[in-house]
Amino acid sequence: MTSTAQTARVFSSDNAAGTAPEILEAVAREASGQALPYGADASSAAVRRRLGDVFEREVDVLLVSTGSAANALGLAALTPPWGSVLCHRESHINNDECGAPEFYTAGAKLIPLGGGDAKIDPDELRAAARHKAGDVHSVEPSVVSITQCTETGAVYTLDELRTLGSIAGEAGLRVHMDGARFAGAVASLACTPAELTWRAGVDVLSFGATKNGTMTADAIVVFDRSLTQELAFRAKRAGHLASKMRFHAAQFDAYLTDDLWLRNARHANAMAARLQEGFKAIPEIQLLGAAEANILFCRLPQQIIDGLLAEGYAFYHDRWEPGVARFVTSFATAPQDIDDLLQAVRRHIA
Amino acid sequence: MTSTAQTARVFSSDNAAGTAPEILEAVAREASGQALPYGADASSAAVRRRLGDVFEREVDVLLVSTGSAANALGLAALTPPWGSVLCHRESHINNDECGAPEFYTAGAKLIPLGGGDAKIDPDELRAAARHKAGDVHSVEPSVVSITQCTETGAVYTLDELRTLGSIAGEAGLRVHMDGARFAGAVASLACTPAELTWRAGVDVLSFGATKNGTMTADAIVVFDRSLTQELAFRAKRAGHLASKMRFHAAQFDAYLTDDLWLRNARHANAMAARLQEGFKAIPEIQLLGAAEANILFCRLPQQIIDGLLAEGYAFYHDRWEPGVARFVTSFATAPQDIDDLLQAVRRHIA
Amino acid sequence: MTSTAQTARVFSSDNAAGTAPEILEAVAREASGQALPYGADASSAAVRRRLGDVFEREVDVLLVSTGSAANALGLAALTPPWGSVLCHRESHINNDECGAPEFYTAGAKLIPLGGGDAKIDPDELRAAARHKAGDVHSVEPSVVSITQCTETGAVYTLDELRTLGSIAGEAGLRVHMDGARFAGAVASLACTPAELTWRAGVDVLSFGATKNGTMTADAIVVFDRSLTQELAFRAKRAGHLASKMRFHAAQFDAYLTDDLWLRNARHANAMAARLQEGFKAIPEIQLLGAAEANILFCRLPQQIIDGLLAEGYAFYHDRWEPGVARFVTSFATAPQDIDDLLQAVRRHIA
Amino acid sequence: MTSTAQTARVFSSDNAAGTAPEILEAVAREASGQALPYGADASSAAVRRRLGDVFEREVDVLLVSTGSAANALGLAALTPPWGSVLCHRESHINNDECGAPEFYTAGAKLIPLGGGDAKIDPDELRAAARHKAGDVHSVEPSVVSITQCTETGAVYTLDELRTLGSIAGEAGLRVHMDGARFAGAVASLACTPAELTWRAGVDVLSFGATKNGTMTADAIVVFDRSLTQELAFRAKRAGHLASKMRFHAAQFDAYLTDDLWLRNARHANAMAARLQEGFKAIPEIQLLGAAEANILFCRLPQQIIDGLLAEGYAFYHDRWEPGVARFVTSFATAPQDIDDLLQAVRRHIA
Repeated sequence: MTSTAQTARVFSSDNAAGTAPEILEAVAREASGQALPYGADASSAAVRRRLGDVFEREVDVLLVSTGSAANALGLAALTPPWGSVLCHRESHINNDECGAPEFYTAGAKLIPLGGGDAKIDPDELRAAARHKAGDVHSVEPSVVSITQCTETGAVYTLDELRTLGSIAGEAGLRVHMDGARFAGAVASLACTPAELTWRAGVDVLSFGATKNGTMTADAIVVFDRSLTQELAFRAKRAGHLASKMRFHAAQFDAYLTDDLWLRNARHANAMAARLQEGFKAIPEIQLLGAAEANILFCRLPQQIIDGLLAEGYAFYHDRWEPGVARFVTSFATAPQDIDDLLQAVRRHIA
Repeated sequence: MTSTAQTARVFSSDNAAGTAPEILEAVAREASGQALPYGADASSAAVRRRLGDVFEREVDVLLVSTGSAANALGLAALTPPWGSVLCHRESHINNDECGAPEFYTAGAKLIPLGGGDAKIDPDELRAAARHKAGDVHSVEPSVVSITQCTETGAVYTLDELRTLGSIAGEAGLRVHMDGARFAGAVASLACTPAELTWRAGVDVLSFGATKNGTMTADAIVVFDRSLTQELAFRAKRAGHLASKMRFHAAQFDAYLTDDLWLRNARHANAMAARLQEGFKAIPEIQLLGAAEANILFCRLPQQIIDGLLAEGYAFYHDRWEPGVARFVTSFATAPQDIDDLLQAVRRHIA
Repeated sequence: MTSTAQTARVFSSDNAAGTAPEILEAVAREASGQALPYGADASSAAVRRRLGDVFEREVDVLLVSTGSAANALGLAALTPPWGSVLCHRESHINNDECGAPEFYTAGAKLIPLGGGDAKIDPDELRAAARHKAGDVHSVEPSVVSITQCTETGAVYTLDELRTLGSIAGEAGLRVHMDGARFAGAVASLACTPAELTWRAGVDVLSFGATKNGTMTADAIVVFDRSLTQELAFRAKRAGHLASKMRFHAAQFDAYLTDDLWLRNARHANAMAARLQEGFKAIPEIQLLGAAEANILFCRLPQQIIDGLLAEGYAFYHDRWEPGVARFVTSFATAPQDIDDLLQAVRRHIA
Repeated sequence: MTSTAQTARVFSSDNAAGTAPEILEAVAREASGQALPYGADASSAAVRRRLGDVFEREVDVLLVSTGSAANALGLAALTPPWGSVLCHRESHINNDECGAPEFYTAGAKLIPLGGGDAKIDPDELRAAARHKAGDVHSVEPSVVSITQCTETGAVYTLDELRTLGSIAGEAGLRVHMDGARFAGAVASLACTPAELTWRAGVDVLSFGATKNGTMTADAIVVFDRSLTQELAFRAKRAGHLASKMRFHAAQFDAYLTDDLWLRNARHANAMAARLQEGFKAIPEIQLLGAAEANILFCRLPQQIIDGLLAEGYAFYHDRWEPGVARFVTSFATAPQDIDDLLQAVRRHIA
């Protein structure tokens, strides 16, 4: 067993959390008995049905063990090897997956675009979507990948998504959504999962769950179902077709049951809001943007940073300008964890 | 939850089983509390230490969610893209992984070799290991992949392994072992894991666990530790570096604790032996080779096959000559399951 | 300049020859003046037109510098990475291209089939074409590659081709033809290029020229023109889109002008026939099959082999059973070269 | 034959030119006689010797038919698939090769850097060379690719090259040079080929020739000879090992004989200088940087651009700001061609 502190002090990422009780219970229910392998089990079927309910239409689904696998497989089905993937320069697929998209696509090229809050600027997308299209000397613009929530925790509004989807559609590009924190976006916005995805033009969604309560299960949700067979072959070939798939499926089934995915995300968002409120009351701390989901950026005096680190708190603080820090909450963050953190911050103000 | 029959009637593969209670408990212990992601947790460290004990030397380890991933990653670290992988023509990597080795190696070529009981014939290996070596017009012989236990459930003896390892060594080939059922082989032979692997020349082992009690965790055990960094990059890039690695690690840690891996394998082997003994007493059934581990081949009258299928029994029966069937037992097979099966067989004898 | 003997004594391959005078003249005509690059030149347009005449229909064409490139590019357009290429186990793509098809296809699998004279056995094709089709655990049968002439110099009859094409069509496979010595086949058979290719179901042809008179130009002839754009991207990306394409085009244009390709092939075939006639008259020599095109296999006493080698003759003699040798003629082989060879053989009979 | 105007009016690229007379003669000398294939011919050996003289040390060489192939193969030998290639954002490998480096490297990532005159800024290189090195979540900085001359026709000074080479060396990066116009750089600078390459840390050089007089032959010059065998396999596997290699070799041998490569480059550079001098005398034209080699940028009134185009002149004019145009000269540009162009420009001034 991993040793843990009394109080949760890791705010560096939501992947430091364990798993939700409902997920563990579902896994326990699968522990005994026999089931058909490779997704032919009852829980896998249930996941597909539940996703159909969530997205208000029939969808196909592949369960994989990481978000990087979900992203890379989805992209590989949407771009030829000579294509390009238009994405934000701060995106996870561009910076944090060690070239997984390049590997899975057999060498497609990621084209980094700019834009505030790690959201793709529509004008940049418009230009890139037509750049040297049809010219064999250049990679062919093929797909735009949208990260929802973004790397900075911002949430694309429905209008923003529709704009990007429309630009993509007019240029003949496919649309991929990296939804590692998709639940957080749905929880944050007053709109439906359908509106945020296929109704805005999304063809394939990486529906993240691991950061929000499961152990090792993320989903590729396929709206363009003509891609499903290809994805099945690609997943198998990549070693992402688990033989005992029911253990992934049980996690995801529970994740979708009784809105656990939304409840968890709402809680994580609420914890970030609670932290934000607390920081607002501390004049030494400058908030940098609002916590739209479960990520909060702020500027702290160095003595606070040093003090927190000395107490065992973990958070990113040396990746940006001096004094800038990022705090991430999760489904498992307790109000007391936030209050303890705020109290610790106050202690370190001279 | 996957619906299950009272009695286990699926003998088509050991992947129809659930998970061992000890594995589930270990996962439950990880459910709460925080841990560092990507393998920096305590359970991951424990797995490495325990593997060091099992193999009587320091090893590196990467935990992945499928045996196909373990095989393909291991092979990719052992052969250049222009290399060839010498393997048995019946091997899983050659037939049942949808080209995963070709994908991960960027197009290396699998060279199928013959040999009885799905064991590589040493003379064929000797010839293939030198075939056009150094000739740029041909792929370069680079690695031999040995499956232990083999596809037919046979177990290479230590002498057989040493012979293959020695041929490989003399020709400058690396050695990979697909140990999807490695525990079954160790349980079957009177020798140590070290003797069966690195002492016989094995550089990288796919140490399977999913078929023998875990849910979704297999290990790449790296004896040639100069390959570890490369493997780490390859695994990340392939989407096989789980963020909540502790959930894979907890499974594998429990798998190695108190010899669970060996106890489970011994049990599965014993169940196959029990079935074998039962079949021996039935004159209408002809055994095809001995059950060295947990797989038994036999020839059955069609009426028995049909009768069993009608009762809900599942087993492979149409992949070989008419009447040939395969039965696979697992850690979860109960003696009563075997006895029920034998009784059912007897019922279907006119 | 490469030093050359008075008499051509290299019979190991038709690639030892230089180039046809007509080809050289065409290249010389391109030497001066300016032209648009990358195939937008007049000679490239002429090649396309002439191929349309040769094949009695509109075709697309990509000129590349090697037959391996032509084969690998063509195959990559016909199979997905998770597909399989059914081919003869003796085929060039399977044995002599260092895994070029695997590289270009991003890891598709070549499935070796048997059959006499290096011709694919129709029954083996029929079985392989359906083998595990649609099963994600296996590579998907996707394309059959037919070598015309075969590795042994045999020529598929039109009926044989139609049979293979029909099996492929029924199973939904695409058809690739490796025509490294396509001209020799046309010269040998009483049928048209159209009958031998698209009318028999061929989608993409590697139309070899280098072995038959050009310097460094081979063509990919695309009958399924929906593949052309993809092939153009693939060729560029592989470094096979020459900037001064006119120099490849000039070679190929001349190759097609006034039936040079056919005249050269007829000559090469005639030289092999002349050698065959000569050998027939020598009782110490046993012919092994007929010279249907420009390759002749025979069994020779070791003293003749040794004697010829000592005189500087070159030919393959140690790849098969002892005493078996292969002689290959070319467009540049002179009757005198054959007569000299026959005389030398006779000299070495004790 | 490609139709040509009386006067050369294509200034869009140096690849519009034909071939140098010396090259054609060398090819003609190879036309007859027999030679061993795949580079075992006398001309190939001569090329290797001559390159040894040019670079004042033993080198290995692979001849290929395009510069893109030379670049992509060289890079593939210098970076693992999980590596990154640091290059200028304007570089040919980043923009104009349709992802060839990504294809050949099995998905390595090109990291675009800034800097004036399309030269890599040393500070940006220094930062990128250490960026997340050793972190499996990111591609690993592996190689810097330097384009000499640059995309804008600028020439790195020896000091500039040494600085980049030194940064690379300290960070453990390999150094690739894209020398598509390498001859132009040598002609422009007062230093030796050795100083410009391996003495400044270059491991592999794409030694371009096609733009400077050959038809279809470029060279990969290998200074780190431990890479040669790998490159040989990679080239074969990519379809870049020509069977009649002597025709590439003859071109390159002539290119190196009696300093043809340097004489041609000096001529091309002189023609650009002549054009520059002419433009200086025309007040309506604004020069944009100096013509260090054979490329000249300037700003022209639209009426001149339109007038030249109407007369059949070809040059890039719509890729940058309005009015900016690029003129490229070649070994085949005649002084009269320049004078005619200048006269045409003057004609179009109202």
